[in-house]
Amino acid sequence: MSDHDRKPGFQRRPPRGGKGYGGKGHSTGRGPRPPRRDRDGDDGPAILYGWHTVTAALANPARKIRKLLLTENAARRLADENIPTRITPEMVRPSAIDQRLGPDAVHQGLLAEVDPLPSPDIDTLPQQGIVLVLDQITDPHNVGAIMRSAAAFAVKAIVTTARHSPEATGVLAKSASGALELVPLVLVQNLARALTELNERGFLTVGLDSAGGEDLTAIELRQPLALVLGAEGKGLRQLTRETCSAVARLDMPGDIKSLNVSNAAVLALYIGASRLGLMR
Amino acid sequence: MSDHDRKPGFQRRPPRGGKGYGGKGHSTGRGPRPPRRDRDGDDGPAILYGWHTVTAALANPARKIRKLLLTENAARRLADENIPTRITPEMVRPSAIDQRLGPDAVHQGLLAEVDPLPSPDIDTLPQQGIVLVLDQITDPHNVGAIMRSAAAFAVKAIVTTARHSPEATGVLAKSASGALELVPLVLVQNLARALTELNERGFLTVGLDSAGGEDLTAIELRQPLALVLGAEGKGLRQLTRETCSAVARLDMPGDIKSLNVSNAAVLALYIGASRLGLMR
Repeated sequence: MSDHDRKPGFQRRPPRGGKGYGGKGHSTGRGPRPPRRDRDGDDGPAILYGWHTVTAALANPARKIRKLLLTENAARRLADENIPTRITPEMVRPSAIDQRLGPDAVHQGLLAEVDPLPSPDIDTLPQQGIVLVLDQITDPHNVGAIMRSAAAFAVKAIVTTARHSPEATGVLAKSASGALELVPLVLVQNLARALTELNERGFLTVGLDSAGGEDLTAIELRQPLALVLGAEGKGLRQLTRETCSAVARLDMPGDIKSLNVSNAAVLALYIGASRLGLMR
Repeated sequence: MSDHDRKPGFQRRPPRGGKGYGGKGHSTGRGPRPPRRDRDGDDGPAILYGWHTVTAALANPARKIRKLLLTENAARRLADENIPTRITPEMVRPSAIDQRLGPDAVHQGLLAEVDPLPSPDIDTLPQQGIVLVLDQITDPHNVGAIMRSAAAFAVKAIVTTARHSPEATGVLAKSASGALELVPLVLVQNLARALTELNERGFLTVGLDSAGGEDLTAIELRQPLALVLGAEGKGLRQLTRETCSAVARLDMPGDIKSLNVSNAAVLALYIGASRLGLMR
């Protein structure tokens, strides 16, 4: 199964020719801070929906809420749980949110239009714990599930490219189940350069690849640790692999030797966090 | 995030009233063998597409291939890898497969119409190793990813209800990436009865639930082991939880305490297989 098996379930505006992120002077570090690309086009807000996703945004003072659509039931539930809405909500019928999101989105009566969060620079990352690096993982369900697992394992940040990554809105935000508010997303222009910077800052950068030389459990891990995951099917790009301090595989006893990428991510996180004594 | 976040991406025929599996004399064990519900309606075949999924089916002598649609490129790739097609393929243009599956399915030029595989009875399961039990997990991407991880960890079978489970076709089969041919799918009518039967047959049945009394790593595991997973959001149903020998949680150090269900499944499998010495 390729990472490309699922297309974004959320409507985006079509990309505009020649206006990609690569042309905007983004850098991996010291340049101007790139806008976090979690919006529905350059000018549109990010769209958050669903109970966990929207309430996590409401609880995050750094998240600017532009607009909040609530059904009566959702408003009552927020009131029951003493969750302030921060701005005056627009009361709507469920069908109004259905119309915005399409019939398959489980929005639970909440939709927020929000500003994207800032993307921190790599040189602001703490030199301890674990960060995840994602190399062109494009499926928003997978990236969302990875962000959720990252929040569960207290990952310090997720580093990924501004291009070839899904935007932090819609399906990704829903799959992340509030993790967007908890795990900083560091968007870089060039992943190999970002890995080099991590190496220079003392990170042990370990790529996960089924062709890795050793099982992850056989590698001596230390903090700060960067675990690097590639897209299913394609795996890590060659330059990514070459820039990692080590490339490891995940040995498993069965006849299938590769996992869904979010499953591989959570397993690598568990192994990493356990070996580094970070499980509590 | 609820397990219901994603609806099946594959077109199914609408269910017909009063003809559900509950009325068909399925039992968890000794009754007539239920047909494995991996088809597009009672009379239609299961639809498999994508390289891994279709080539795994071609390699499985128990899988009856009814029809095989190939693009020229896919036919060449099969020939290059010396994979027999078993039946005379129908050569088509990629757009013909697109039309069958919708534009978002990554079929890589292969589509097979196949018969469902038989559903074995619980009393045929080996009394060693690990089985997975799924309690109303409805999302086909998640169930497919779980089957793939099950194949990676040499799980003996997946036990689930014939109702409230996605069919083993289309998106589920694609996400499973060939695992449908490797992991027997045991469809039962009543999950609590199936768990009772597993208990009687000597299985340690461990439910995973964030409200579990102990962390999974703190429970003394033994073979044969059944790990029981519920839908996200809803979790294990009460009767399921009560029928398990033990209910365990997965402790994690971060601020989010629950994982995507397929991520929880792979973590439980890794912990179970490691503790039981089944990792090689």
